[in-house]
Amino acid sequence: MLSKVEAPDSILVDCLQYSRPSRDRFLEWRAGKVDAVHVTLAVWEGARETLSVIGEWHDLFAENADLIAPARTAQEVREIAASGRTAVIFGFQNTTPFEDDIRMVRVFYELGVRIVQLTYNTQNSIATGCLEDRDAGLSQHVGRQFVREMNEVGMLIDLSHCSEQTCLDTIEHSRDPVALTHANPLEFVGSDVELNRRAKSTTVLRELAARGGVVGLSPYVRMLRHGIDTTESEFVDMVAWTAEQVGVEHVAFGTDFYTGYGIDAVKWWRMGRWGRESPIPIDESAPVVEWPTWFESPRSFPTLIEAMQEAGFTEADLQLILGGNWLRLFEHVFAPSR
Amino acid sequence: MLSKVEAPDSILVDCLQYSRPSRDRFLEWRAGKVDAVHVTLAVWEGARETLSVIGEWHDLFAENADLIAPARTAQEVREIAASGRTAVIFGFQNTTPFEDDIRMVRVFYELGVRIVQLTYNTQNSIATGCLEDRDAGLSQHVGRQFVREMNEVGMLIDLSHCSEQTCLDTIEHSRDPVALTHANPLEFVGSDVELNRRAKSTTVLRELAARGGVVGLSPYVRMLRHGIDTTESEFVDMVAWTAEQVGVEHVAFGTDFYTGYGIDAVKWWRMGRWGRESPIPIDESAPVVEWPTWFESPRSFPTLIEAMQEAGFTEADLQLILGGNWLRLFEHVFAPSR
Repeated sequence: MLSKVEAPDSILVDCLQYSRPSRDRFLEWRAGKVDAVHVTLAVWEGARETLSVIGEWHDLFAENADLIAPARTAQEVREIAASGRTAVIFGFQNTTPFEDDIRMVRVFYELGVRIVQLTYNTQNSIATGCLEDRDAGLSQHVGRQFVREMNEVGMLIDLSHCSEQTCLDTIEHSRDPVALTHANPLEFVGSDVELNRRAKSTTVLRELAARGGVVGLSPYVRMLRHGIDTTESEFVDMVAWTAEQVGVEHVAFGTDFYTGYGIDAVKWWRMGRWGRESPIPIDESAPVVEWPTWFESPRSFPTLIEAMQEAGFTEADLQLILGGNWLRLFEHVFAPSR
Repeated sequence: MLSKVEAPDSILVDCLQYSRPSRDRFLEWRAGKVDAVHVTLAVWEGARETLSVIGEWHDLFAENADLIAPARTAQEVREIAASGRTAVIFGFQNTTPFEDDIRMVRVFYELGVRIVQLTYNTQNSIATGCLEDRDAGLSQHVGRQFVREMNEVGMLIDLSHCSEQTCLDTIEHSRDPVALTHANPLEFVGSDVELNRRAKSTTVLRELAARGGVVGLSPYVRMLRHGIDTTESEFVDMVAWTAEQVGVEHVAFGTDFYTGYGIDAVKWWRMGRWGRESPIPIDESAPVVEWPTWFESPRSFPTLIEAMQEAGFTEADLQLILGGNWLRLFEHVFAPSR
């Protein structure tokens, strides 16, 4: 296991979790030696609702100051990690909080939001999501102007739930490198996986990497080659395979870990308030989510890292994959008006 | 000129105007013998802003009860017309007031909104607008569910500023006939007109008519064959040409008349709050809008109708074009949960 004492520069960043926040989760982060987590504030929420979510997080920061603190820069991530706590980076999985007001990019940046996904599964004014059969990509007018604004302000663009064409367009139009905070390679996991439309083509991964972007790989079973039966070793193979395809400087973690929700949350994620029918059928009798035995929670990070060491990842590679790649990207993107 | 006394069933409906509302406009309607006007409450406004616009209209109804009254049904249009006043039908030129909440369709229906355009020029979660080079049409998930909801609730779908594919998809997916409240035929006006992307293909017009829809033709000079130099006779020719293509039961008026605005309004229409650059360049030195000498305002309707009579339109055809077609459509669509 990586030791913080031996390798002080090694930082572990999980670039997406969406659990219901609570002290139990923050204790889990500390137990797993997780230095930074990108958390989701909004998926369908509008501006006003998102302000309340930010307010709730500030209560949590006050009540759990021994475990967590908010980070707005790569440097703050390092400082919070050095203090033995977990840095929390605010993000949205949709642009709904902007409510089609381009100046809200800056307003939410001022409030600490640093990572924003253009759309969540379906089409919106800015982009096309991964569940649409017709793929218009990044929209020509609203979409391109928002990408430019996010670049100017210093917000990292996330394409995880976006369509193939949205990924390719945004990689091309964005001045700055972009992220797939939580997505697996389609070529590796195979199109038989349940969420095959969420997995990313090798073309997208290569273009993303060529422009300096980073992909966060996930142990979310619906996006793993053998679902719940996927072994830790297969997951480690996926990390190695992806690094071979796009370079180790562009591969990292974004577990998509979530827990603490009931069926109502699943319905909210699937169709917000816009639907009377879910685009993905919801099985109300099934568990909300299942995690593999080797990643039941972020507590499992140390054993996962051991498995990667045993599989032959060098310390240098591990430093990049565990957090170095995300920190480099944050350092570059989060600085506004360069 | 059509006389109300001779033809009591003849009702004149202008199925889109977007002037800044004031008593002067309502006097203009009366001078032009306009029995009903579909007015625009929202183009980029959200739910809350639209509630205020509705409140302002209720003040106007109270202050101008001698000239106007709100209509929620075809029957109310007829009753208000019979009382010598102009019926006001509420509409949106965009789905932004719904804020991606499908239940807002019913809420705004309860508030009297009867006609809603799916999108205004650009892409949104529901549909693709006429200014997008990539045309994904009606969106597969959000768009189709909203169309179904609008059908169920009794709201007339307007496609005037939508893309070709959105028109075709919506005509196909909508249980009820739909409207182009204000659009001209591309084949007649020619692709050299300034707003050629707003004009509609003969394919769309024929499909619309085949499913019982109606198109409202407009004397808006940026969508007329010879711009500001277009003659009244050419406009009348366009009405006749369209009736020949799709049948006189599917042709009507939607003038798009507007006045009373400055450059700030033009900027709002072009890019709401979503843009820092307009997708259509704005010439700040040009007049906000110009109308042809033969349609300087709705006061010109009687002379326009005379010109149509001289051009050989029968009284039966005129009754359909002036209002009968719109009233038939309203009668059919505005009844919820049939």
